[in-house]
Amino acid sequence: MKPRILLTLSSLALLFSSGVAVADPVAPPSPLPENSWSVPVAPGGPFARVYLPQNAPVGSDTVYGDSQWLQMNRNARHNAAVRVPKDAPAWFREGVFWRYAEARAWPLERRHPFGARTLGETEAGAVQTQFYGNALGVSVVGGVVYAESDDMFAYALNARTGQLIWRTSPVGNNLMGNPLVTRNTVYLAAGGVGFNFANVVAYAKKGSAIRGMDVSYNGIYALDRRTGRLLWHKGSVGEAMPTPVIHGRFLYFATGSGTVHALDRHTGQSVWKVRLGGNDNMSSPAYDKGRLYLAMASPPRLYCLDARTGKTLWHGTIPGAANTGMGDVSPAVGSGVVVMDTVTRPKRIHGRPTLEAVVRAFDARTGKTLWTVSTGRGPKPPAFKGGVPLIHGDVVYVGSPVTGRYVALDLRTGHRRWAWHKVAATRSAPTYYEGSLYIAGGDSLYRLDPATGRETGSFRIGGRMGIVSPTIVGGTAYVANSYDWIVAVPLSALSLSKKKAS
Amino acid sequence: MKPRILLTLSSLALLFSSGVAVADPVAPPSPLPENSWSVPVAPGGPFARVYLPQNAPVGSDTVYGDSQWLQMNRNARHNAAVRVPKDAPAWFREGVFWRYAEARAWPLERRHPFGARTLGETEAGAVQTQFYGNALGVSVVGGVVYAESDDMFAYALNARTGQLIWRTSPVGNNLMGNPLVTRNTVYLAAGGVGFNFANVVAYAKKGSAIRGMDVSYNGIYALDRRTGRLLWHKGSVGEAMPTPVIHGRFLYFATGSGTVHALDRHTGQSVWKVRLGGNDNMSSPAYDKGRLYLAMASPPRLYCLDARTGKTLWHGTIPGAANTGMGDVSPAVGSGVVVMDTVTRPKRIHGRPTLEAVVRAFDARTGKTLWTVSTGRGPKPPAFKGGVPLIHGDVVYVGSPVTGRYVALDLRTGHRRWAWHKVAATRSAPTYYEGSLYIAGGDSLYRLDPATGRETGSFRIGGRMGIVSPTIVGGTAYVANSYDWIVAVPLSALSLSKKKAS
Repeated sequence: MKPRILLTLSSLALLFSSGVAVADPVAPPSPLPENSWSVPVAPGGPFARVYLPQNAPVGSDTVYGDSQWLQMNRNARHNAAVRVPKDAPAWFREGVFWRYAEARAWPLERRHPFGARTLGETEAGAVQTQFYGNALGVSVVGGVVYAESDDMFAYALNARTGQLIWRTSPVGNNLMGNPLVTRNTVYLAAGGVGFNFANVVAYAKKGSAIRGMDVSYNGIYALDRRTGRLLWHKGSVGEAMPTPVIHGRFLYFATGSGTVHALDRHTGQSVWKVRLGGNDNMSSPAYDKGRLYLAMASPPRLYCLDARTGKTLWHGTIPGAANTGMGDVSPAVGSGVVVMDTVTRPKRIHGRPTLEAVVRAFDARTGKTLWTVSTGRGPKPPAFKGGVPLIHGDVVYVGSPVTGRYVALDLRTGHRRWAWHKVAATRSAPTYYEGSLYIAGGDSLYRLDPATGRETGSFRIGGRMGIVSPTIVGGTAYVANSYDWIVAVPLSALSLSKKKAS
Repeated sequence: MKPRILLTLSSLALLFSSGVAVADPVAPPSPLPENSWSVPVAPGGPFARVYLPQNAPVGSDTVYGDSQWLQMNRNARHNAAVRVPKDAPAWFREGVFWRYAEARAWPLERRHPFGARTLGETEAGAVQTQFYGNALGVSVVGGVVYAESDDMFAYALNARTGQLIWRTSPVGNNLMGNPLVTRNTVYLAAGGVGFNFANVVAYAKKGSAIRGMDVSYNGIYALDRRTGRLLWHKGSVGEAMPTPVIHGRFLYFATGSGTVHALDRHTGQSVWKVRLGGNDNMSSPAYDKGRLYLAMASPPRLYCLDARTGKTLWHGTIPGAANTGMGDVSPAVGSGVVVMDTVTRPKRIHGRPTLEAVVRAFDARTGKTLWTVSTGRGPKPPAFKGGVPLIHGDVVYVGSPVTGRYVALDLRTGHRRWAWHKVAATRSAPTYYEGSLYIAGGDSLYRLDPATGRETGSFRIGGRMGIVSPTIVGGTAYVANSYDWIVAVPLSALSLSKKKAS
């Protein structure tokens, strides 16, 4: 049907309805309720929320595993693992296998990231992580996998089947975090990575600039956990890329303007904010015992704040810290120790830029340095430039994208126990689960013996990992990668290949 | 149906198919053909191409108006208007009215752009133009409206009904141009506006940086005109935001790396490229008589290149040119004259940044300056900082976002004939059609007497205009705006309100 639309002026008012597709001269669509359009997402369009309640888990599928997810990688130690009891349904214990292609998915079997011909292999991998993929891992709560992707969508999938429960894209911006989940709400942080021209000029003059300002829409988005419906959003001037942290009534997040915000997590109202200076790029705050720990780049500093007031209790640094490294990494906190990693001392060697990665442990109470360990010099990595540490027991496990090496360090002394070198981009925290260490690196999921660093199994997922810690719930590792896929792999699938890959 | 997925290792290979949603243990989806996934867009997902052949125009609806669209605003003079003959179907002559909400549409009746509370009204308007809306106007060819939006989609709509024919988002990036259309192909240029941190540091050291590098996927995308299917894409290192230009077998485009590329438009193969330096932000090349005219920012220069070889024939500047202005504006070329506009000489007045807008005419053959006219000083505009000129007959019509004023200048002398001051952000070229001048500004479409600048009619569209020249085909003006809407308005709807708006 192609209605011929010849208009008189008198008919224009009628036609000029709030129709979202074509204004129909016969029956203009009724105006949309105000709150259905509180962000620029055309109802019925590709960014409109999809909700498929029939795919939600039911009954016992919802009662095992975590009931909330309050900070990046689940806790301040960055260990994204939860056991399930013996009476959990068999699929929880034995594990499931599925894969889900997000909106900008790139085939897992492709060996080269999109754009490799134009940007080069290394850079294209980093760009793909930032513009299509899942920068971090997923959150798994009550039988649902929650994921954020730089395809600009957030997803809720059934953890058992991989089926989509909801998908939403409340604003046109990168979503790089690990969704936070409380009783009824999912929280997302949104922020683009760029600087605009005015900011570039400002940086040249003053040595500082606000990351993400006027390059994107930034801030916090609170969604109904069941349906993905937007409840409220709170804008910020600088990007809000790192995963926020929740404690009690408060949600804390840091931005590319060097500001730390505390919001009432029920209403989005501001409780306090402090301007520390610099940029927080991807340094998610860690909450521990009334304190927030996070880092900024330029100037490079690790901060300890009183979570109630935002007052700086202490700040420290790693000597020679360079580039964005200090603002990239989220510190791990455990047993009274804060562990931080960054790149330091840029130097050209044979004409190529290199950096040295350094791990430092601070006393969580006083900020006093406990030890400092270099994990070696190597080529300058693109984009995210650190290794997110995991603290488990009396050991720190941390990778280095500079050397492509994971190391185990004694938490008290920094003494190195072992090193494992197999994948190139080693930026994510490992996950410790039932006597094994799991690492998502390269295109695979690896299992190591945490005492020796010996590899005890691997599984090729395909694609490429970002800063992805495997999220382990019972018998399944859930991984989201920079090819824009969410994959569930049963731990029993990890096998020790007879022929070692070179 | 929720299949319980318990796996043995032997069944994993079977399951690990190229399924795009959930891997189904019973019948894995068949692998997708390679070329259906040549960019990261998951088949079946929200970015997948939509094609509705039943909405395409047929018969006489396709044979009037233009049969191709080869440069921004249709020609080197920037006049986006085409008459239709008396035997064209009545709807062509009498005009149609419809509106189409693109993917990130914001309700037209809203007075404030999204994010105004966080960013302020002025900045939020500019950001919305860059991240959701249509930066430029639309191309209309053979009864179809082609549009690019920063919602990352390109659209083809039936020009008569406003119904969607196809929608595609071949890559996650801003689409800010005016689609080019030849016999079988639609060309898009993609580029993000930002700088990454390494680029910021480089600019601080060297005074130059590549815009869009590693902040987004950049380049040219060639689509099947009928279906929107991707034919090929060609990446570029800097952003490729401005509309390219086609002449004969060649497609020319300029980038944020200061490079001008000539491609074979059938294959995407490179023919030549030259590095001029600086950034092209939004200065679309104008093609005229074997030459390309375009401008770069930092350093600010207008270039005349031999289209066959890329050799610089001459370059000129506007004294005091500042910020991104010179690289924003596309020069108009006609009657042997190149007209260029930019902002100059930043100065703080009462603590607020101001700029002066200056128009200069160059001899197209030699680059010799013919005249230079200041159109006045005013507050520094956000983002795009110039007025795109229109040449019609012996007059230049150009707006200034600095003063909010459109002026008519004599093409030979620069002598000012009139000025019209009604809307604040006056950045787009007017359109001249059958003895009237049409301007898309503020939330409205205006008609002026080109001889006197007297307003002879207006129509409130709603939303906010970017750098949008109305595209006029017969009795209809087609406008796309920064609220992410495409609107068709019959010229007969423009009326002279009795009460002038203040």
